[in-house]
Amino acid sequence: MLKDTTFLATQIRAKKSFLCIGLDPDLEKIPANFHDFDQPFFEFCHEVVKITSHLTVAYKINIAFFEALGPDGWIQLEKLVKVIPDECLIIADAKRSDIGNTSKKYAEYFFNRLGADAVTLNPYMGMDSLEPFFQYKDKWSIVLALTSNPGAADFELKHTDKGDYFFEEVLKTFEESSYKDNIMYVVGATKAEYLRIVRQHCPNSFLLIPGVGEQGGDLKQVILDGRNFTEGLLINVGRKILYPKSVNTTMSDVLTSAEDYRSQMAVFF
Amino acid sequence: MLKDTTFLATQIRAKKSFLCIGLDPDLEKIPANFHDFDQPFFEFCHEVVKITSHLTVAYKINIAFFEALGPDGWIQLEKLVKVIPDECLIIADAKRSDIGNTSKKYAEYFFNRLGADAVTLNPYMGMDSLEPFFQYKDKWSIVLALTSNPGAADFELKHTDKGDYFFEEVLKTFEESSYKDNIMYVVGATKAEYLRIVRQHCPNSFLLIPGVGEQGGDLKQVILDGRNFTEGLLINVGRKILYPKSVNTTMSDVLTSAEDYRSQMAVFF
Repeated sequence: MLKDTTFLATQIRAKKSFLCIGLDPDLEKIPANFHDFDQPFFEFCHEVVKITSHLTVAYKINIAFFEALGPDGWIQLEKLVKVIPDECLIIADAKRSDIGNTSKKYAEYFFNRLGADAVTLNPYMGMDSLEPFFQYKDKWSIVLALTSNPGAADFELKHTDKGDYFFEEVLKTFEESSYKDNIMYVVGATKAEYLRIVRQHCPNSFLLIPGVGEQGGDLKQVILDGRNFTEGLLINVGRKILYPKSVNTTMSDVLTSAEDYRSQMAVFF
Repeated sequence: MLKDTTFLATQIRAKKSFLCIGLDPDLEKIPANFHDFDQPFFEFCHEVVKITSHLTVAYKINIAFFEALGPDGWIQLEKLVKVIPDECLIIADAKRSDIGNTSKKYAEYFFNRLGADAVTLNPYMGMDSLEPFFQYKDKWSIVLALTSNPGAADFELKHTDKGDYFFEEVLKTFEESSYKDNIMYVVGATKAEYLRIVRQHCPNSFLLIPGVGEQGGDLKQVILDGRNFTEGLLINVGRKILYPKSVNTTMSDVLTSAEDYRSQMAVFF
């Protein structure tokens, strides 16, 4: 594990920050001057990285936004990964999963070729669908447990015949496996009341927490209920940092917003 | 719906075939002469399409195998979609899902830019995570229900507090929605004993059935238990058609294997 738990805890304490900045580039929202570039997504995200890397522990790249552009999006994505400083964890937010021989191809792409440190994964198809990712011992697999969207109620929050929530079944299955040391879990900040249940199942794991910011999750509650002895939290903020104003956001606004989130976190150190 | 239920039923009856050919191009397995091309995946798949399109109702393109190549893989993928004849359904086997604004980007790519007729989707995150796909009324959304891999036992086959299998909860949720007319479901052929349960929940839907061939599912049982009044089945065979021999497969072997599967199906018409 190149960027292991100790590495992450050290970064979090040094920066007094749990911040993970979500890179969700959107042509309709990025500052107008980036539209003149041949590779506006790369250029915009590169600028964001340059001005925020001292404030953040990780970057979570939203793969869909690059994929939507076709082959050129992947070219910009591959350039972007190369310019993110080594001190930051690079998360490919791809939510992949498939049968084993297919998951192997996804893992090869995201870990070997792209060079991401971590990739988000969907657990629905079960253990063997994610094993090709888990087998990369120097990389992180980040498994969806309880997501931040309303649809989490449809299946994740249904009860099993044992009385557990379905997302608990997911946590138990992976925590009982030999792979647990390189697995993190996604738990939405909008579901902060469930964080204590999550921590019963995986007290030692890192959690990736989306849903603070645009989706309205409570930052303080997440830190109080989710933090553990290795810090154990990466709190993602995407749109509220990239596009803090509804129109005419500047890079200075981006910096101010990132500093503001980091300040709200620094008081806990 | 451009290639709707009636269109598919008509194709299936005309061709006497439920066949969906899985395009899973693998450099280690394709005939050696394709290695000399700049775009071996495109060239190989294009040849497969040329010699098999009269036998098959659909092609299921395994996106991971193209994604693994980086930007060049997406260029080959986009070329491939353009050469598949209109009479065949084009399925992007991508197993995507995410929160709404992100799923919207995936849907834009696969339906609008790539031009696929259908995309496979993972239901874990619930209804709102897939709605951006469902809103394309002239396209098919193909939701994972019960997959063909052993890991299906981990979650899909767990019981809910109501005594149902978890995959039944998935089927019920989508069948009760207003989107059901453009949803198909994935049900693995290796789980043929569950097909009757599946059909109780979605008697009218098309099912995409992987797991015949390499994974050992029983073709006859699938047809007997899965077929409905609009035929209702797309039976995927990938590796057993693309690579029928363990070494030195030729295009003639590919044709022979596709003809053999189609013959096994034709006796049911």
